[in-house]
Amino acid sequence: MSNTTRYSVETIPGGYPRDRIFNPVSVAVMGVTPTPGTVPYDIFYNILASGYKGVLYPVAPGKRSISSVPAYRYLTDIKDDIDLAVIVFPAKVVARALRQCGEKGVKGVIIISAGFREVGPEGAKREQEIKDICAEYDISLVGPNCLGVVNTDPKIMLNASFARKMPAQGSIAFLSQSGALCTAVLDYARNRNIGFSKFVSFGNKAGVTEMGLLDYLHQDEQTDVVLLYLEELRDGRALIETARRVTRGDNPKPILAIKSGRTPQGADAASSHTGSLAGEDAICEAVFAEAGIIRLNTIEELFDTAIMLTNQPMPKGNRLAIVTNAGGPGVMATDSAVNLGLEIARFEQATTDKLTDALPAAANIKNPVDVIGDARSDRYEAAVGAVMDDPNVDQALVILTPQSMTDIEEIARGIVKVHEQTDKPMACSFIGAADVAVGVDILQAAHIPHYIMPEWACGAMADVQRIRRWRELPDEADYQPPSADRDAAAAIIDAAPAGYLDEDQAMTVLKAYGFPVPACKLCRDADEAVEFAEKNGFPAVIRVVSPQIIHKFDVKGVALDLKDADAVRNAYNDMFRHISEAMPDAEIKGVLVRGMIPAGREVILGAKYDSAFGPTLMFGLGGLFVEIFRDVTFALAPITPFTAARMVRQVKAFELLEGARGTGPADVDSVEECLLRLGRLAFDFERIAELDINPLIVGPAGQGSNVADVRIRLSE
Amino acid sequence: MSNTTRYSVETIPGGYPRDRIFNPVSVAVMGVTPTPGTVPYDIFYNILASGYKGVLYPVAPGKRSISSVPAYRYLTDIKDDIDLAVIVFPAKVVARALRQCGEKGVKGVIIISAGFREVGPEGAKREQEIKDICAEYDISLVGPNCLGVVNTDPKIMLNASFARKMPAQGSIAFLSQSGALCTAVLDYARNRNIGFSKFVSFGNKAGVTEMGLLDYLHQDEQTDVVLLYLEELRDGRALIETARRVTRGDNPKPILAIKSGRTPQGADAASSHTGSLAGEDAICEAVFAEAGIIRLNTIEELFDTAIMLTNQPMPKGNRLAIVTNAGGPGVMATDSAVNLGLEIARFEQATTDKLTDALPAAANIKNPVDVIGDARSDRYEAAVGAVMDDPNVDQALVILTPQSMTDIEEIARGIVKVHEQTDKPMACSFIGAADVAVGVDILQAAHIPHYIMPEWACGAMADVQRIRRWRELPDEADYQPPSADRDAAAAIIDAAPAGYLDEDQAMTVLKAYGFPVPACKLCRDADEAVEFAEKNGFPAVIRVVSPQIIHKFDVKGVALDLKDADAVRNAYNDMFRHISEAMPDAEIKGVLVRGMIPAGREVILGAKYDSAFGPTLMFGLGGLFVEIFRDVTFALAPITPFTAARMVRQVKAFELLEGARGTGPADVDSVEECLLRLGRLAFDFERIAELDINPLIVGPAGQGSNVADVRIRLSE
Repeated sequence: MSNTTRYSVETIPGGYPRDRIFNPVSVAVMGVTPTPGTVPYDIFYNILASGYKGVLYPVAPGKRSISSVPAYRYLTDIKDDIDLAVIVFPAKVVARALRQCGEKGVKGVIIISAGFREVGPEGAKREQEIKDICAEYDISLVGPNCLGVVNTDPKIMLNASFARKMPAQGSIAFLSQSGALCTAVLDYARNRNIGFSKFVSFGNKAGVTEMGLLDYLHQDEQTDVVLLYLEELRDGRALIETARRVTRGDNPKPILAIKSGRTPQGADAASSHTGSLAGEDAICEAVFAEAGIIRLNTIEELFDTAIMLTNQPMPKGNRLAIVTNAGGPGVMATDSAVNLGLEIARFEQATTDKLTDALPAAANIKNPVDVIGDARSDRYEAAVGAVMDDPNVDQALVILTPQSMTDIEEIARGIVKVHEQTDKPMACSFIGAADVAVGVDILQAAHIPHYIMPEWACGAMADVQRIRRWRELPDEADYQPPSADRDAAAAIIDAAPAGYLDEDQAMTVLKAYGFPVPACKLCRDADEAVEFAEKNGFPAVIRVVSPQIIHKFDVKGVALDLKDADAVRNAYNDMFRHISEAMPDAEIKGVLVRGMIPAGREVILGAKYDSAFGPTLMFGLGGLFVEIFRDVTFALAPITPFTAARMVRQVKAFELLEGARGTGPADVDSVEECLLRLGRLAFDFERIAELDINPLIVGPAGQGSNVADVRIRLSE
Repeated sequence: MSNTTRYSVETIPGGYPRDRIFNPVSVAVMGVTPTPGTVPYDIFYNILASGYKGVLYPVAPGKRSISSVPAYRYLTDIKDDIDLAVIVFPAKVVARALRQCGEKGVKGVIIISAGFREVGPEGAKREQEIKDICAEYDISLVGPNCLGVVNTDPKIMLNASFARKMPAQGSIAFLSQSGALCTAVLDYARNRNIGFSKFVSFGNKAGVTEMGLLDYLHQDEQTDVVLLYLEELRDGRALIETARRVTRGDNPKPILAIKSGRTPQGADAASSHTGSLAGEDAICEAVFAEAGIIRLNTIEELFDTAIMLTNQPMPKGNRLAIVTNAGGPGVMATDSAVNLGLEIARFEQATTDKLTDALPAAANIKNPVDVIGDARSDRYEAAVGAVMDDPNVDQALVILTPQSMTDIEEIARGIVKVHEQTDKPMACSFIGAADVAVGVDILQAAHIPHYIMPEWACGAMADVQRIRRWRELPDEADYQPPSADRDAAAAIIDAAPAGYLDEDQAMTVLKAYGFPVPACKLCRDADEAVEFAEKNGFPAVIRVVSPQIIHKFDVKGVALDLKDADAVRNAYNDMFRHISEAMPDAEIKGVLVRGMIPAGREVILGAKYDSAFGPTLMFGLGGLFVEIFRDVTFALAPITPFTAARMVRQVKAFELLEGARGTGPADVDSVEECLLRLGRLAFDFERIAELDINPLIVGPAGQGSNVADVRIRLSE
């Protein structure tokens, strides 16, 4: 997809963070003030107090020292080379400070200060100035309007942020467009004993973007999983390209993301607060699907899944075993697991035998295994051990409720023992709080993920399955786009004014791109129509062609199933009489004559040029499915066969194409072929504002499809 | 619905708990052993240690005392009257102990012991014996196979359960079919500072049922909200009747419930662990909808909503204001609120003016209000005060993220101040953990519900809206069921063997119940068919009638649109020739002749006799909507107009009946009328195993509907 970047609202000038942003040997904080509790002081003090392993210089005009560290009036007063400058000056003087960085040869800069694009036109101007300076001096920039950057690597220990405390070390990287959210996330994560490798608030992303950060973290040895909080998606194509590189291949790392502004009201709020371009959520959904990014809704879902990914191996399959000492939560977990697409494992006989031996008669030895309320550690260990050994089990969830005889600590130790002897992932849910705390600590120390509620564990396990399936998809490196006669289409499109193409022109464009268009001819009078129909065969169809008539059926501009020459002639005359009364001012170019298309299943293929995402594609089944159930899928054009298959299969009504209701399978291949061609057409011609093939009539498998109607609207 | 109980699997013999179960003056624990950490000891000790205000007697054969309390060999050795006996003997001797209770005149009994219905046929026999004894002595029984009962009322202080600790006092009652879940819930709730009025584990509900408990708690002054965990729904009709009494009227109390076993796999697990009758989840859903019970999925959803209900007033409307110091969580909360059906309030000008005055220029003064990351308590207090005063705001959610300058404690105090001056509900989400804890404590002390994540607050608020709308529904006390000629239908149904009724018979049954059935006649030969068609009018339809031919179209047993006498005669002859070849053994009774039904929108009305729930009804739009999207609604028969309206409106495709796609509204009234009639028919005849009106063809508004096809299958 190398030529796709022309639809980027913004490519990535300096969008890739230089390593010195995360691993600087020397840091200057520019604009420090001496008052604790203010951002300019706190940022400086946080670096100082975090145990940073490099050299730290405060730039604080008019101060001799800050917290006893000697201060400098100007950056240029510092003799040492500076790797990273953190700018906390007020917005108005940021540009000047940045230029000083450039002159001193500083290549990494974080601008914490707010007052840029997010505050309106004046701020946007300031932001552009900053971008220009970064380009001029080749500066790698994080921010502005951000919380800063944290690197917990013990060799660096950099907390260049206004987060109160340094987070614990871990293998999760967190990237956030919202700064304020970061502090809350850090506090929340600390409470769950979750550590981070890197923590980045990238704010307005005037320089470094999420794409650059993803590439950087892909190479970062400390990072295993990337969490991403986005408020705007400015460059879907670049995100797809980058994320695929990160999430697949030799060194795959999962990306879990929240993209807020799902609802129109939420998007409103987003655009008023960071000046975001709120894209249509359906397109975002498509971008994430194409990118292999797991989209989640809430902060705790992010961490629920991240702790599973960072603590446990990838399961080999989808089959879950549940062991519980309480039937109720076992049933609830089963409901949740099944709803989320996990499979409830069926045990082999050997497992059932082991469970029968180890458990009392009243226990349930089927999955979910109920060891019963009075179970102690021996029963748990035997049951969990038995199910983990079963080749039909890919992963297990162990649930515990604290009864008065439950030896929680011993049970946790027993689970840890089983865990040490298996290479399959496990998770636990000891439901409760104080009573179960001692067991939870033991589990977590052994890197067994713990969830207060079993449903959360199921959610995390289901997300892991999505990642597994994504990684298993075949590569498509050798795919060749469909052939097309671009010149023939250009001859029509380039010459046409803005507005709808006439139907004969639209059909010619589709034909040039290899769509299955029925033989047809624009005929100027009844004789010509009869002549073509006789040559082409009966029954015939005639359709009026007029730039003013978009909805042909409304003015009786379509006549179907004309069985002979007389029928064509009469239909022609009737049509013209009716239209001359109904729309006397319509300019009639003639009628399009073609044969009847054999009946089949009707689908809709659409393309739309989106100002943020460029050409996008839509697919759905005809009529009601689209209108009532909004049962449609989207993608960015162009697409590959992989995406064509996804688009067709992700609509619920796909069953109908597959052959539900005893109709036999439809020719799905031909639909995918048409989607590929539409992807190329929409990509080749930016002027195609909207294109609707409605319907494409799909025949039985092997018998192809036919375009029954098409409308193409061109922009200026 | 007084005559509906005949479909109860079980009515409620002694199902209503006597007050002495919760408020006994004297308690005997029967079967106490001296070993701490065993159920028989712990139950006794928990009553002793809970500070019970009455007199406690251990019955422990062979022991002089238990924990220094004098012990008795037999219950009858106790001179005092006993209000409540708690039986912890092994299952085999429970019946004997229970009989002793009866003989001594004990009217309230809790059986903790397991080993009854849940362990198979032998246990079921034991359980029946217990029921018989309770009936004989008029004993009100909780259990068996349960955790016990807790009453936190300071005048009683009874912890007759094997829960480790007495829960805090509060106004939430918790009823659970699962005993093991209870201990986990108590531990979890303690961690969230949630108190209870009553806590009941009702186990196998051999005596007291959820219905009896709901009625009891409806009268209980300590209880404001009831939480219910159910694994089986044995008597949907009784639950509807009881819950409506509790959730509506003068003293309405919300009921929030989990019914586990939603998925077939979950239901499997449920039935293997408490011997439950797992009903179809769709019917459960319908029962809860009819009952006004808010169905939730997880334990924390139960408590999220319960703390909102018990701490805050009912909102007057649906409009939500959000105040936040971080845009990101504000957008996420907005997304969540909108997805859950809450409305984002639009402020009036006065509010906007106040916000403009109080907040800096960079703030967002539209809803969600963003007071910006550096906001301190003055800004929060002003913003929250302003939105609460706005008449367009019904409720508010205040979000905080801990920035270094955030004076969390003062902000919490400011919110409390606003809260004291408003009668509208509020909730807060201070995102984080340790950093925000001090603020959370202040909020909770002032009874402002707090949620770590804003989405949880939105979920609770959305549930409160469901309760509000339920309470506002009009009563239907004066509804009269539709008239019907029951005898005419009985003449056919009572005489027919098991299996399908012939179409003419089925049509006659529908006619007797007032359905819009087209004029039709069963004709034995072509002459008769022609004669009737001429009388009835053309175009005519003929349909073969044969007990062996269920799928008429498959054997060309239907001929449509017959325009004259010849067409009818030819169709008749063709049909018989074809069928005599295709199904030579079919016994042909004749053909049903009727007129063509005008085209319209097609809907399906169904009835099915369910072994657990009795007659049930189904509604959906024709064909694909039912088959692909499972877009159907259910109810228990008979129904009232309220339910008929719900059934029709809860399908997604309702838009089509309302007039989407420019078709104009369909005659929805006539569909509802048919559902009411179907409800009565299915209710009147238990032998109707399945009935499908497919399709009912619905005309434009005011023009009625027509039954186009019906099949009725009778059981033995």
